[in-house]
Amino acid sequence: MAKNVPYSSCETPVITRRKIVNRNRHYSFQDNFRWKGVKVDEYKTNGDDWDGIARQVLIGACGESTKFHLRYFEIKPGGYSSFETHKHEHVVIGIRGSGKAKLDRRIVHINYLDVLYINPETPHRLYNPYDAPFGFFCIVNARRDKPRSLKKK
Amino acid sequence: MAKNVPYSSCETPVITRRKIVNRNRHYSFQDNFRWKGVKVDEYKTNGDDWDGIARQVLIGACGESTKFHLRYFEIKPGGYSSFETHKHEHVVIGIRGSGKAKLDRRIVHINYLDVLYINPETPHRLYNPYDAPFGFFCIVNARRDKPRSLKKK
Repeated sequence: MAKNVPYSSCETPVITRRKIVNRNRHYSFQDNFRWKGVKVDEYKTNGDDWDGIARQVLIGACGESTKFHLRYFEIKPGGYSSFETHKHEHVVIGIRGSGKAKLDRRIVHINYLDVLYINPETPHRLYNPYDAPFGFFCIVNARRDKPRSLKKK
Repeated sequence: MAKNVPYSSCETPVITRRKIVNRNRHYSFQDNFRWKGVKVDEYKTNGDDWDGIARQVLIGACGESTKFHLRYFEIKPGGYSSFETHKHEHVVIGIRGSGKAKLDRRIVHINYLDVLYINPETPHRLYNPYDAPFGFFCIVNARRDKPRSLKKK
């Protein structure tokens, strides 16, 4: 598995030549919703149907053999994810501030530690209509299909 | 999948005859680390190598098609899980109080929102040496092998 995993913050630049190994890891929580040793990326590297989202991959980029990946996303006030659909599921857990999810035509409010399960092929978007950051864990299958953008808000 | 899933709190007794369906679900967080519509079980139904642990299955007992399950465990002061090993991994996220994990001979402290990845076949135990409850999410593969107890503290 490690072969297919892109270079990630699990290995610092100093040890880029070291093989990424599947081993016990402890990511301690830091100030401002960062985890020690985990880098912050943009939500996506392309597209114009999203805004103001950062991503941290906590489990899934460092050779872990789990059938799932754990990510933390944070949406700035006014930000939103792509409105999209796919075969794989999402499990979302709110941990910072509050936000909303549009599930097809339904709007769900996500508060602290609420758990949201998004069923396969449900068109969805997460967004932050509030004045404070909205942060959440998102768990997905490690092997998953590519999202299809629905190109509307 | 639903056929093999035991009867769970996702369906109330009133609707036991209704088919468990894979659909969007929103479990709102309640007081005292409960989630609306999710029942509290014991950690295990047998064994004497654990004490003082409750379990809530948030994702995995209601027909969800994810390749993973999400559970919340809470360990009372002085409580501990079985010291065991298995081929599947654990991802642990501390969300209430603090606790510790024994990973083979290593002791790891788990604070709020720390993320711990426990590698396959690492003998492990989670425990609470403190005076307040220690609660954490634990994510596992949906298909997983049976733990083997190591019968020692």
